[in-house]
Amino acid sequence: MSSQQTSEHLVHVPLGERAYDILIGDGLIGRAGGEISTRIKGRKAAIITDENVGALYHGPLMDSLEADGFDTVSLTLPAGEKTKSFDHLTKVCDVLLEARIERNDVVIALGGGVIGDLTGFAAGIVRRGVRFVQIPTSLLSQVDSSVGGKTGINARQGKNLVGVFNQPDLVLADTAVLNTLSEREFRAGYAEVAKYGLIDKPEFFDWLERNWREVFSGGPARTEAIALSCQAKADVVVADERENGRRALLNLGHTFGHALEAATHYDSSRLVHGEGVSIGMVLAHEFSARLNLASPDDAKRVERHLKEVGLPTRISDIKGDMPPAEELMKAIAQDKKVKGGQLTFILTHGVGQSFVADDVPSSEVLSFLSEKLER
Amino acid sequence: MSSQQTSEHLVHVPLGERAYDILIGDGLIGRAGGEISTRIKGRKAAIITDENVGALYHGPLMDSLEADGFDTVSLTLPAGEKTKSFDHLTKVCDVLLEARIERNDVVIALGGGVIGDLTGFAAGIVRRGVRFVQIPTSLLSQVDSSVGGKTGINARQGKNLVGVFNQPDLVLADTAVLNTLSEREFRAGYAEVAKYGLIDKPEFFDWLERNWREVFSGGPARTEAIALSCQAKADVVVADERENGRRALLNLGHTFGHALEAATHYDSSRLVHGEGVSIGMVLAHEFSARLNLASPDDAKRVERHLKEVGLPTRISDIKGDMPPAEELMKAIAQDKKVKGGQLTFILTHGVGQSFVADDVPSSEVLSFLSEKLER
Ligand SMILES: NC(=O)c1ccc[n+]([C@@H]2O[C@H](COP(=O)([O-])OP(=O)(O)OC[C@H]3O[C@@H](n4cnc5c(N)ncnc54)[C@H](O)[C@@H]3O)[C@@H](O)[C@H]2O)c1
Ligand SMILES: NC(=O)c1ccc[n+]([C@@H]2O[C@H](COP(=O)([O-])OP(=O)(O)OC[C@H]3O[C@@H](n4cnc5c(N)ncnc54)[C@H](O)[C@@H]3O)[C@@H](O)[C@H]2O)c1
Ligand SMILES: [Zn+2]
Ligand SMILES: [Zn+2]
Repeated sequence: MSSQQTSEHLVHVPLGERAYDILIGDGLIGRAGGEISTRIKGRKAAIITDENVGALYHGPLMDSLEADGFDTVSLTLPAGEKTKSFDHLTKVCDVLLEARIERNDVVIALGGGVIGDLTGFAAGIVRRGVRFVQIPTSLLSQVDSSVGGKTGINARQGKNLVGVFNQPDLVLADTAVLNTLSEREFRAGYAEVAKYGLIDKPEFFDWLERNWREVFSGGPARTEAIALSCQAKADVVVADERENGRRALLNLGHTFGHALEAATHYDSSRLVHGEGVSIGMVLAHEFSARLNLASPDDAKRVERHLKEVGLPTRISDIKGDMPPAEELMKAIAQDKKVKGGQLTFILTHGVGQSFVADDVPSSEVLSFLSEKLER
Repeated sequence: MSSQQTSEHLVHVPLGERAYDILIGDGLIGRAGGEISTRIKGRKAAIITDENVGALYHGPLMDSLEADGFDTVSLTLPAGEKTKSFDHLTKVCDVLLEARIERNDVVIALGGGVIGDLTGFAAGIVRRGVRFVQIPTSLLSQVDSSVGGKTGINARQGKNLVGVFNQPDLVLADTAVLNTLSEREFRAGYAEVAKYGLIDKPEFFDWLERNWREVFSGGPARTEAIALSCQAKADVVVADERENGRRALLNLGHTFGHALEAATHYDSSRLVHGEGVSIGMVLAHEFSARLNLASPDDAKRVERHLKEVGLPTRISDIKGDMPPAEELMKAIAQDKKVKGGQLTFILTHGVGQSFVADDVPSSEVLSFLSEKLER
């Protein structure tokens, strides 16, 4: 992977009549009006954002849209995972209908994955679908949630249980906005970046081990890592848009991660998604080693890198009490389909060599987790 | 159209990987378990119904499903249009998630269009889509709402404004259940049957003029009229699944009809959907005559037939006060896109010769409606 000076990247997602572009670069929000107006017929734009992001970037986005002749309407929601609810979905739909957003008009998600998931869902169901643009502002949303078309909300039974597949018409990943993201949120997003290396790109993981400081400090290495991540996710999505096979690899670290998120009641002061994924990826490598599928050295190498960038890597890194292993297993069983005591899991033969295993005995997972919790 | 004795009809809807069958015949509910189990992998079935239909047919359906090895869970909702709401959608999703309905399990809508639209929407968004079977029990739902994949709920801004396209995996139209449908609801559904003739099948309209009594009394003529209606709708849907062109013809009579429904606040004691469509179709023919597109005799012929079967055909047939023409225009403008004072409308050159007109001056509609309201 070279790190030559490139100001802007374009990743095209070739999904037939649902094909779209992801633009990655500095200052895209200031150019949003122009980029959107060449791709969308309507002249009404609804901006959905959260309080944190809105305070910083709503003004510039609105200015750019209005300069390009859009009528805008805006809705600012509370920040945080709880916003991905039926109540807020109803609210967003109401605002879009009240503003008379029609099929060719555009709904813009300006924010992290929470705003992107909620807004994409609303845009997919209002009038059975209106135009939709993602302006992801967190690292996690730039490299993960804004690509792939999964949108949705949470239910009391679990996360992301209600939603639609809704590919955006355009993604504008403005890397400049990452400078206001908290260090902790940036790190959490970085876990997903590293994930792409761990899934099937060992050379990218090598590169990250050498260049992560530049990725954190900004500049071309950061833009390049984001572009490569978007490309990696887009490749998987194009191969498997509706998640029947290979797309499951994107869940590396996520089965354990989701269980930890559930165990901490999605309390972001204790654990955010990317942190759960970080611990989950280390656990997935350790569990693979325990099943003699991979070398324990790989697990150590993964842990070393994630720790170096400042991510939590062990369950004991989470503040506060953790429930017993049985409780974690319950969350895993709710997340995954258990068939005759067997679980589907993403395991690995080593760095960059992950695979889908659909015959993991849940008893093995339970005893592994019990051990981990004892430490 | 022949009326030979045929006990069962099958209409195949060839939509590629979303293709499905519509079975039309007597006693299909008793065979539902078998028909569904050959088409669906999962072994959990959720039945969503309303109070009226549930009291009559929930038991037989559940028995049939359980006899074929399905685990069932059921939810009975209040009957009526108000059930198509965000609150009930949330409730249905909650029940499906609580029952752990997975992607290959099935959600069954047992009821009229209200239950079908709501349930189809929920089935389309829970886990981003689970299997879905329609068992339409009203004539309207058998010939119209269960075919075509439009699902959704109402918003305070208007009807059907939030939803998804979600083709069912199977439609079972059991004609025996129509015997418990009220005469009034049967007639309302008949308006949609007549609509297919008026759109582009003049010979079907002729046939209905001659055979409507048999359609009302049951037997092979009824089954045949339903099958032909399903086929007519399926043809349009296949040509234009996502409603960009020809599918608009299905809205014959509906622009006026929806305005009348809105004007009566969806109060079914005053007007049900099919009654609004009946009046709306007469108005569409009269309006076409007024624009010198069709002969006034066609309007009279249409009115004569609809009146003969007992449907309302004039605005003055609606009990209670009607708002002024300006109010009806507002509802029309909310329903349709108004571009530079021009409306898109379904007009006609005569019986069975309707077409999409996208340049109808709203001033003409207004003066036409004012006249109609004066009488
Ligand atoms: N759809 C998908 O495929 C997919 C994939 C992964 C994750 N997700 C979802 O994404 C969500 C997590 O996304 P997230 O981590 O972006 O969470 P988030 O949207 O809550 O953003 C994290 C925090 O950072 C703030 N923030 C975002 N951008 C900022 C900026 N530029 N400057 C300052 N503050 C900023 C937000 O206000 C929020 O407080 C979860 O709900 C998860 O389920 C979805
Ligand atoms: N999705 C579409 O393409 C589409 C098309 C047309 C209409 N619709 C929708 O369909 C709805 C109207 O459908 P509907 O007319 O079936 O209304 P409905 O579902 O309210 O049914 C009408 C009444 O008949 C009762 N009923 C139904 N079947 C019965 C039976 N066999 N025996 C006794 N009672 C029975 C119901 O309980 C209800 O009280 C509207 O919401 C409309 O928007 C949707
Ligand atoms: Zn993730
Ligand atoms: Zn209708």
